[in-house]
Amino acid sequence: MEKIMLASDYQEGTHPAVMQRLCDTNLLSTKGYGTDAFSESAREKIRKACECPDAAVHFLVGGTQTNATVIDAVLRSFEGVIAADSGHISVHEAGAIEAGGHKVLTLHHHYGKIDAGQIRDYYENWLHDENRDHMVRPGMVYLSQPTEYGTLYSLRELTGISKVCREYRIPLYVDGARLAYALACRENDVTLADLARLCDVFYIGGTKCGALMGEAVVIPDPQLIPHFFTIIKQHGALLAKGRLLGIQFDTLFSDDLYYHIGASALRAADRLREAFQKHGYTLSFASPTNQIFLTVDDAQKAHLDAIAASSFWEKTADGRTIIRFAASWATSEEQVAAVEEKL
Amino acid sequence: MEKIMLASDYQEGTHPAVMQRLCDTNLLSTKGYGTDAFSESAREKIRKACECPDAAVHFLVGGTQTNATVIDAVLRSFEGVIAADSGHISVHEAGAIEAGGHKVLTLHHHYGKIDAGQIRDYYENWLHDENRDHMVRPGMVYLSQPTEYGTLYSLRELTGISKVCREYRIPLYVDGARLAYALACRENDVTLADLARLCDVFYIGGTKCGALMGEAVVIPDPQLIPHFFTIIKQHGALLAKGRLLGIQFDTLFSDDLYYHIGASALRAADRLREAFQKHGYTLSFASPTNQIFLTVDDAQKAHLDAIAASSFWEKTADGRTIIRFAASWATSEEQVAAVEEKL
Amino acid sequence: MEKIMLASDYQEGTHPAVMQRLCDTNLLSTKGYGTDAFSESAREKIRKACECPDAAVHFLVGGTQTNATVIDAVLRSFEGVIAADSGHISVHEAGAIEAGGHKVLTLHHHYGKIDAGQIRDYYENWLHDENRDHMVRPGMVYLSQPTEYGTLYSLRELTGISKVCREYRIPLYVDGARLAYALACRENDVTLADLARLCDVFYIGGTKCGALMGEAVVIPDPQLIPHFFTIIKQHGALLAKGRLLGIQFDTLFSDDLYYHIGASALRAADRLREAFQKHGYTLSFASPTNQIFLTVDDAQKAHLDAIAASSFWEKTADGRTIIRFAASWATSEEQVAAVEEKL
Amino acid sequence: MEKIMLASDYQEGTHPAVMQRLCDTNLLSTKGYGTDAFSESAREKIRKACECPDAAVHFLVGGTQTNATVIDAVLRSFEGVIAADSGHISVHEAGAIEAGGHKVLTLHHHYGKIDAGQIRDYYENWLHDENRDHMVRPGMVYLSQPTEYGTLYSLRELTGISKVCREYRIPLYVDGARLAYALACRENDVTLADLARLCDVFYIGGTKCGALMGEAVVIPDPQLIPHFFTIIKQHGALLAKGRLLGIQFDTLFSDDLYYHIGASALRAADRLREAFQKHGYTLSFASPTNQIFLTVDDAQKAHLDAIAASSFWEKTADGRTIIRFAASWATSEEQVAAVEEKL
Repeated sequence: MEKIMLASDYQEGTHPAVMQRLCDTNLLSTKGYGTDAFSESAREKIRKACECPDAAVHFLVGGTQTNATVIDAVLRSFEGVIAADSGHISVHEAGAIEAGGHKVLTLHHHYGKIDAGQIRDYYENWLHDENRDHMVRPGMVYLSQPTEYGTLYSLRELTGISKVCREYRIPLYVDGARLAYALACRENDVTLADLARLCDVFYIGGTKCGALMGEAVVIPDPQLIPHFFTIIKQHGALLAKGRLLGIQFDTLFSDDLYYHIGASALRAADRLREAFQKHGYTLSFASPTNQIFLTVDDAQKAHLDAIAASSFWEKTADGRTIIRFAASWATSEEQVAAVEEKL
Repeated sequence: MEKIMLASDYQEGTHPAVMQRLCDTNLLSTKGYGTDAFSESAREKIRKACECPDAAVHFLVGGTQTNATVIDAVLRSFEGVIAADSGHISVHEAGAIEAGGHKVLTLHHHYGKIDAGQIRDYYENWLHDENRDHMVRPGMVYLSQPTEYGTLYSLRELTGISKVCREYRIPLYVDGARLAYALACRENDVTLADLARLCDVFYIGGTKCGALMGEAVVIPDPQLIPHFFTIIKQHGALLAKGRLLGIQFDTLFSDDLYYHIGASALRAADRLREAFQKHGYTLSFASPTNQIFLTVDDAQKAHLDAIAASSFWEKTADGRTIIRFAASWATSEEQVAAVEEKL
Repeated sequence: MEKIMLASDYQEGTHPAVMQRLCDTNLLSTKGYGTDAFSESAREKIRKACECPDAAVHFLVGGTQTNATVIDAVLRSFEGVIAADSGHISVHEAGAIEAGGHKVLTLHHHYGKIDAGQIRDYYENWLHDENRDHMVRPGMVYLSQPTEYGTLYSLRELTGISKVCREYRIPLYVDGARLAYALACRENDVTLADLARLCDVFYIGGTKCGALMGEAVVIPDPQLIPHFFTIIKQHGALLAKGRLLGIQFDTLFSDDLYYHIGASALRAADRLREAFQKHGYTLSFASPTNQIFLTVDDAQKAHLDAIAASSFWEKTADGRTIIRFAASWATSEEQVAAVEEKL
Repeated sequence: MEKIMLASDYQEGTHPAVMQRLCDTNLLSTKGYGTDAFSESAREKIRKACECPDAAVHFLVGGTQTNATVIDAVLRSFEGVIAADSGHISVHEAGAIEAGGHKVLTLHHHYGKIDAGQIRDYYENWLHDENRDHMVRPGMVYLSQPTEYGTLYSLRELTGISKVCREYRIPLYVDGARLAYALACRENDVTLADLARLCDVFYIGGTKCGALMGEAVVIPDPQLIPHFFTIIKQHGALLAKGRLLGIQFDTLFSDDLYYHIGASALRAADRLREAFQKHGYTLSFASPTNQIFLTVDDAQKAHLDAIAASSFWEKTADGRTIIRFAASWATSEEQVAAVEEKL
């Protein structure tokens, strides 16, 4: 394959260290469904990384599955989840949240983010609406870190949202599908421990951050979701060979691998971003993590297409195109250098 | 681990040939969601093995997920699925079918099986019930091959059921979670081509038959389920790195590996069955595939427990216990010999 | 209409006293959704009749709707409801409970009833099953009083069931679609106050007991179902002109009308039962309330069909037919006398 | 009650002619579930009024129930319904559509309406989105006539929307909760026959248009929804004494009563609108049917509150309040005169 593949961060298998570990453990016999020792070890490492020794940690397979299962587990039947209108659950999960019976209550995003004031206003409007009891009750707030736009919630912003959620007793859920690329970002000031302190449930993404597949759901206070194992099973989200997820997360959380993966991707992204700008390309908006969004005209698009595969994001009003490049743990220095050279 | 692990057929990773292939392809970049060339190659091999060149083939991750997704995709909202009361969907999926809105209409099983006459009677009773329109409409028949009891539908039996289903225009669905162990069984006379000819949808199990995870859904007439891709996504069952499933099934359907895996497990099971009987153990019922069910008293159970791990099946009325041993692709001749020796 | 209509207890409009009250109040303006003074008065009368001053009382329109709404409101998503396999929710609600995501966990009935021992066994078996967490959690027990077979739970039986439910912390729900015909029965020793004391939620049937439509859900401890108003709305079960239900129940619970309605129907049923037996007809089983089940051969069926409309119940193994006659508040002494005469 | 009640159009019982008919038929015995002769007669009258002799007509109890049942019956599990963001299903049904598993795909309304261009753009954007198969498929368009804002779709507008829907093969559904007040409006040019010609399913509202309760669903081509009876039952929306709905609609569609009811309400609304304007009140927007929206300051609000009960609509940015008055069949000339006098 001549063309450099930068279209997404889930186009290769798994980080070599993870693959090695899967090979090494392949013929061992363990119990199923995540009750094995690898999974327990991974849980313990995640609890430590989150500075949250009592947290429940569950491993699921993919992002949409995790969102649908967690949200359905937390909400009562008559409750909905507040999210950015650009959120993954709002647009790109084929109605998985609604299939579980819940409305996604959308707020207008600003580059993928919503803020504490919007949440407060939404809740207050609902609370004081005379028809409140005929409306969906807001029962959860959903964020992603980083967002669909590659942007980050700052610690101050996340603290503000958490405060509103706790004031109204609405659980806060953070989708961390690309969390490695937030944690390793220079602009980021939100740690795993902060997430565990400020959120009621969040997940640490594996699929897009170096694993074959897998997402680690962290529930700082396990009482939030009793019987979550059965709920996971009911949602078809319980992996028979659960140890596969345990082995992968155990490896990702050994020797800081999860952070190194993120850092390596961000170095690549930063170099690419710089190179694009140096050659006159326009960033669509500031996006400090592993995704780079460029607004290009047709000639620029053709030139870039010849160099590296990107993905289509959207058309602009003036007829240009926003395209996205994504760096990952698998993006090599050679690939980046090749792009720089050909630009 | 001293004890020989025979508790289930999903306690190891994957067949070494599959693991090798995953390693070899690990760093290649491909498109996601099963749109890659490995998945397409696997589909083509499965179509050939099923002698069904027009079949749609979709890869999902696990059994409960596959059952819930397929059944929900085929049924209309007011329809239910006929199944044995011992069926996996009836008992061990934590209500996944009902979570999709559908009743499981149970028939009494005989060693895991139901028959054409029962299905006909059920349908006719419903059809002629004056309150029919207040009742759940039977909209699908669910079987598993082999069954939860390790028993097999013969070609004659399956043909009979298929005939009834087509007479009443009810799709027939076969859960093949352990299909490799049916296909390789000496008593079996139902081929993949027979399944493709007699069923409307079935799945070829990977998780319990040599893969890390994965089930291949075969729809002989793709018109049965339009938009199945979106339905899979909505059910949280779409694997981002879909090629992982494609690579595994492509390997399983190369060089007859899927059949060899089954045959190897059945050789082990046959030897174990013979050894148990030779030493005075009672088979609970005839079960010709990879699962062996023994009815044991407490002393026998203690003796066997010391030799090899089994799983609890149920208590009998007379206070004895039915336990299950499962052989798999991973059960070695050395392990079998060790059991024989220690009995 | 020459033929005397005894096919069901919902074939006329409403008791004349109720109709009169609807006429008298027709042009008054009130607020909607059950927030009117009539509904509040009816609630207060029901609380008094149940000797349960703190109970929440909600008015819904019909039985299937009430069952689906209450069960969905009480259960968590992964829980199912234990019921007789002959129960209305098991057979005749077109899958309404499953449409809400919940499995009906059926126990074999004896003339419509289940007993405390069966419930205990079911729960204990589930509790001690090694695969418990892969199974639907029993989260509610559903009974009906009287049952589909017109039989009654005695106070001793209901107390036993309630005790088991409380031991296991499973809410007990009683469907009282025909409750008037239980309360007025000589064999009955279960009062409204007993129901309020022993159940966690139950409903007092209006549709089959003298109202145009309507069922009154009683929740002795309102904390059992927070936000029930919104849940009712979400289930499409909130009547805009809620006062219609309030007016009807206010009338039914004035001057003991609900009891008189039941008593009048039972007098008719008793006379009919006696007359049938006197003329050589066989009761299918003892059924002391307003429904009479006869097992008849073809000649008997033809003779009875010419006299009065009944409804088909089921075929017996020996080719005879079980038919059902239902007396109601609308069955007049003249009608009964006419049947007696023509038998 | 001194104060004149104009807060809503469902605050009284039923039109006296309907009540008289219910009284006259009260003690007749009929079969249940809408299989009676009254219901059949009503269906026939509605078919004639719609000039649609083959239409299926079903009677349900209330609006939210009807919307949830119809939408769930038409959509496949992975489809959503396009609606105005101000639509009843979008805001005021407590998530009933999502409880059935479907996303409401909202378009920005203009005074309650959406237009053909918006629908076309939405569909085209979805159709050409590279991630289309990860998104909810638009499977229906929902309008209401009149809208929540009391506005009307013109025949030209409705024809345009119908054309887009048919081009894309998306069924068009019109919620006619207040249809009598559209049909009788001078500005209206959309007849029942137009609705039957341009829509795939619509309902003729009873609850807010003179009935105690009830909505008549019209399906011009009954093949659109096979087994609708069972679907209604499953949704808890099947009235046992279905003839109550039949009797009411039979009366409403005798002697043009449905049109007279609408006309009487509109005469009252027009006089009120004129009186408010004459006394310096500002209409919030043009709303030609039975609802009148005024934007008032606190003093105006207090003055009006003393005269007649209205309902709160929303706050404006400048601190004023939008209130709604609703005239109905029950609004008398005396009441209108009294308001005029006291203004």
